[in-house]
Amino acid sequence: MNPDISRERENASFNLEILTNVLDGGAEKTNRRREIESLVIGDPDFQHEDLNFLSRSERYDAAVRKSAQMILKLREYGISDPEEIYSYKTCVHRGRPEPLDLHLGMFLPTLLNQSSPAQLETFFMPAWNLEIIGTYAQTEMGHGTHIRALETTATYDPSTQEFVLNSPTISSIKWWPGGLGKTSNHAIVLAQLYTQGKCHGLHAFITPIRCMKTHMPLPGVVVGDIGPKFGFDEVDNGYLKLENVRIPRENMLMKYAQVEPDGTYVKPPSDKLTYGTMVFIRSMIVGESARALSKSCTIAIRYSAVRHQSELRPGEPEPQILDYQTQQYKLFPLLATAYAFHFVGQYMNKTYHRISGDISLGDFSELPELHALSAGLKAFTTWAANTGIEVCRMSCGGHGYSRCSSLPDIYVTFTPTCTYEGENTVMMLQTARYLVKSYKQARAGQQLTGIVSYLNESQSRIQPHSVSSRPTVVNINDLVSLVEAYKFRAAKLVEVAAKNLQLELQHSKSNEDAWNNTSIDLVRASDAHCHYVVVKLFAAKLSEIGDKAVHSVLSTLALLYALHGVAQNSGDFLKAGLLSVSQLDQISQRLKGLLLEIRPNAVALVDAFDYRDEMLNSSLGRYDGNVYEHMFEWAKKSPLNHTEVHESHNKYLKPLRSKL
Amino acid sequence: MNPDISRERENASFNLEILTNVLDGGAEKTNRRREIESLVIGDPDFQHEDLNFLSRSERYDAAVRKSAQMILKLREYGISDPEEIYSYKTCVHRGRPEPLDLHLGMFLPTLLNQSSPAQLETFFMPAWNLEIIGTYAQTEMGHGTHIRALETTATYDPSTQEFVLNSPTISSIKWWPGGLGKTSNHAIVLAQLYTQGKCHGLHAFITPIRCMKTHMPLPGVVVGDIGPKFGFDEVDNGYLKLENVRIPRENMLMKYAQVEPDGTYVKPPSDKLTYGTMVFIRSMIVGESARALSKSCTIAIRYSAVRHQSELRPGEPEPQILDYQTQQYKLFPLLATAYAFHFVGQYMNKTYHRISGDISLGDFSELPELHALSAGLKAFTTWAANTGIEVCRMSCGGHGYSRCSSLPDIYVTFTPTCTYEGENTVMMLQTARYLVKSYKQARAGQQLTGIVSYLNESQSRIQPHSVSSRPTVVNINDLVSLVEAYKFRAAKLVEVAAKNLQLELQHSKSNEDAWNNTSIDLVRASDAHCHYVVVKLFAAKLSEIGDKAVHSVLSTLALLYALHGVAQNSGDFLKAGLLSVSQLDQISQRLKGLLLEIRPNAVALVDAFDYRDEMLNSSLGRYDGNVYEHMFEWAKKSPLNHTEVHESHNKYLKPLRSKL
Repeated sequence: MNPDISRERENASFNLEILTNVLDGGAEKTNRRREIESLVIGDPDFQHEDLNFLSRSERYDAAVRKSAQMILKLREYGISDPEEIYSYKTCVHRGRPEPLDLHLGMFLPTLLNQSSPAQLETFFMPAWNLEIIGTYAQTEMGHGTHIRALETTATYDPSTQEFVLNSPTISSIKWWPGGLGKTSNHAIVLAQLYTQGKCHGLHAFITPIRCMKTHMPLPGVVVGDIGPKFGFDEVDNGYLKLENVRIPRENMLMKYAQVEPDGTYVKPPSDKLTYGTMVFIRSMIVGESARALSKSCTIAIRYSAVRHQSELRPGEPEPQILDYQTQQYKLFPLLATAYAFHFVGQYMNKTYHRISGDISLGDFSELPELHALSAGLKAFTTWAANTGIEVCRMSCGGHGYSRCSSLPDIYVTFTPTCTYEGENTVMMLQTARYLVKSYKQARAGQQLTGIVSYLNESQSRIQPHSVSSRPTVVNINDLVSLVEAYKFRAAKLVEVAAKNLQLELQHSKSNEDAWNNTSIDLVRASDAHCHYVVVKLFAAKLSEIGDKAVHSVLSTLALLYALHGVAQNSGDFLKAGLLSVSQLDQISQRLKGLLLEIRPNAVALVDAFDYRDEMLNSSLGRYDGNVYEHMFEWAKKSPLNHTEVHESHNKYLKPLRSKL
Repeated sequence: MNPDISRERENASFNLEILTNVLDGGAEKTNRRREIESLVIGDPDFQHEDLNFLSRSERYDAAVRKSAQMILKLREYGISDPEEIYSYKTCVHRGRPEPLDLHLGMFLPTLLNQSSPAQLETFFMPAWNLEIIGTYAQTEMGHGTHIRALETTATYDPSTQEFVLNSPTISSIKWWPGGLGKTSNHAIVLAQLYTQGKCHGLHAFITPIRCMKTHMPLPGVVVGDIGPKFGFDEVDNGYLKLENVRIPRENMLMKYAQVEPDGTYVKPPSDKLTYGTMVFIRSMIVGESARALSKSCTIAIRYSAVRHQSELRPGEPEPQILDYQTQQYKLFPLLATAYAFHFVGQYMNKTYHRISGDISLGDFSELPELHALSAGLKAFTTWAANTGIEVCRMSCGGHGYSRCSSLPDIYVTFTPTCTYEGENTVMMLQTARYLVKSYKQARAGQQLTGIVSYLNESQSRIQPHSVSSRPTVVNINDLVSLVEAYKFRAAKLVEVAAKNLQLELQHSKSNEDAWNNTSIDLVRASDAHCHYVVVKLFAAKLSEIGDKAVHSVLSTLALLYALHGVAQNSGDFLKAGLLSVSQLDQISQRLKGLLLEIRPNAVALVDAFDYRDEMLNSSLGRYDGNVYEHMFEWAKKSPLNHTEVHESHNKYLKPLRSKL
């Protein structure tokens, strides 16, 4: 054990295990998670060479092998709780995506939720037993977030009682679905349904794409891998071009909408039913933001505790870089953000489960708010984590660029969350639509409830005024007071956006043009709203913490998170008259004080995330701090070191000498 | 040609060629650059498979092949001007780093600048003819920017007239030098010189590391590749562990410092002489920031012109995404930044060449200012470009994640500039040291000259005052007035940092602690200083532009750059009383207007960067806009598509069925 890092741990002011339990949601959950981790990490069937040393084809191969093993083991151990399956899978693939992700996460659930009883009978067990391996083919080459524009067609032919599927243009080729390229033999294809000469919009079709015996593509099916990406090396994201592919009428998912044998279309009872899954996935992504950022902080902070560099005092040994104020200022606000996002993720999960009970009873009343919240928070947290991971990486100096740090992998694995399941800017605008609607309702005298209820106050409290005349009410040392300040900022920015939208409407050709011409303001309003929600939820979490020492250290983090956000957005707070210029100076000084308060607990605060070395897979982030020994051992295994003299020397450089 | 992108080009308001000449520094330079590009791109010897489809070893192999060819061709064509060699090399390797970079860029120049005449005689021609292939081994596993702490030792043994080189610890192993792992047979090793029982600090030693015949590592030399990284796949960044490696006394570079045969150490006349190279490289990096960002903007803006998505007006076809305000707000400020950085790069290059004339005449007077400026601007521009590339990538939706977009490659190739040649935060603090020193001189009554002369005014003009009482002097539509505002902001933040430093000195144990405890403020001061310099140089460049239409479009970009910066840092401007709250609202609206003004010229403005398709290597950024056809062709070549059925299917998935 590196002595620097041991000393850090001795200095911690709180009991690690209590905080870990808070993060896991209880001691029982911590224990069960650890059990599962031990089960996987000790299992020789899941050992593998460092993936960084393998070609893409080898990485895909290793992932398929482990996924196949995993299915067997899950059944062997009787693990069937979705959360536990998720934990197990995360362990097996060390947090990386894998070729069966869409089979397990989209194909099976969609079958379960959207099949008629007869379809369940036909498809579910073969899919459960991996005879049918499926994916979910929605995105097309030319169409992403705006799914109504998808071009793939499914035209019903009553003479044979079949649908004829086609990719009519190059931009309609299905593109990106995970597991589509090489792994799947079926796909749920989203296509525009045509029957009796009329288009009825998007519907889902179970489409066989490869032969169940030979695994060769079926006639009319052009399928393959879309090529190398920024990360996701283990996944065969694929393309699918359909050329008059015929499937039986029974392959349209018919729990809700139906096509009768003669081609008569029967409408679904409600379109809100598929809404829930989307909300669930976006809520999950908030948790992913927390995990990716907390892993990155773990690596960067541990390494900063053992890395010595430069000099603070002449003649003295190089200090730990964690003692540099600039390093603390890079990492500790991100650490606070990681904690904040963990708690937001917990809240979203809990809320989703509470509301989904209501939904199944036909009560959709809370769904719009949750939908708006999950869209905005998905964008807010993924953007922040995305930037934060790179800050962590670059805070590690040169070694952050080595694959052995794991930080490049964390980044490339995480960054797609900014785009998939709803592109972030589009998400922010969806939230803004809800905010503007709520604002208008409040103006019209309606009393809002829920998280937007602060807009009720906006008429009376948020008045135009000069900065200096506004009385200063914020106490910068009081989190509750800061939550209020964030609330007023959000209210102010929603109001600005709504008013600008109103102004645009007076000049614009259409509502849509006005909306577009206000969208910068609308995104800012959503951002401020989400920021408020995060600060508020962090503050609310504190009230649940019984342990005094843990409460104290989390309070410091929460204050850091809130004040750092104020400093980063000081223009908004000044402009709204929420803070005075001298308070901003006080905040700058207070932030420095908070960094020093957190400093002795920094390593313990990342230890509490409780990532095993096997999960981090980082030379820099090792628990024992023995960074350099491990890096050297790792480097020796680099494929370029398999021979002392690389063949290129003899092929190109040696012959060159005689030519010059 | 895609009709959307043709239409964009027809709408341009200015003559493309004139702007390209401005960027290149004259029509002659544009022509010569194009000549060189045609020479390389038409050359069958430089053709290669898409690197994304190759393993790392194959990529290294391809790079060595092309580098060897390049050396032959450069001599064949008689290209010897350093700038032209740079252009040629950039073309051959399509902007990627290559295994001979350090041989050409560091080993040969260091030999030239620091060898005695006898050493030149011995080493230069063999190195020029690639018998000796060298690298520059400075960084160690545990030591980067703070080079005084390097641990490698070179101990003089007068009995044999040799230096004995050692890596005494694991953290002293040389780590990261490009070309060190497999390519080089020599390294210039930076080591602490010991002679006659005394350490004389860092000196450079020409150290043979591999046998000139067999290319096997020499006795006592442990050398290899450091393993896969975030990018840089073509380069064998290496490690080097020296175990009692003996080299002749004549292998210490002796132009300045010397060790006589008996071990007597002779001091160098000045330590400023090696200073210049560092300044030069940092100045070059400013240009790299401009290039990386302008490439990214080219790809993102062209793709945004051909990509249709979502709907603005119901029932109408999906609009070009370049028509979305949020998309413009992401990309156009970056486009303006790319132009700004091009002009800053030109300025730095010109200034360096002007000053280096003085330096060679022994006049070092301007060096400190240029040193401070190059450090800060290196950090300022690389951070901005680094973030900007990712914004461009994510503005392309899902396809930005595909390697065929080239954006992931641009990012991983560029991001190390934030760390190498001086870690960015350290760079900012170096600039801050100069600023604080200048500030103190001004306070002491000294009249400052050069770029920091604005600090002369700080005593009289920058007074504490309330936000509302300050008369508003800034005209937000006038670039000259905005330059002034940036200047005052910089002056204010330098003053804040200097005063906080002073306060800390009253409480701190030492100057160094006080410095550390103020470093957040110091970095902000440097950042504001650099921001001011960039806005100022952009404004200054406009006065050189004769063509009216080009002047007009560049003025719009400059105004966008300046106002966007104000909006992003509105807290500073409000706090300093430089702008009123209502002016900030006007700026928000004005920014929207500027986006619309730039919109019709957006594609032409990236066309003017004049990157050939072969240089961009991006399906999304193609000149002809035929994005999707090209993506599909590219994907079909993915290695995973070499067989229809991947072997993992038969190995793991098929057998699984019987087990379940």
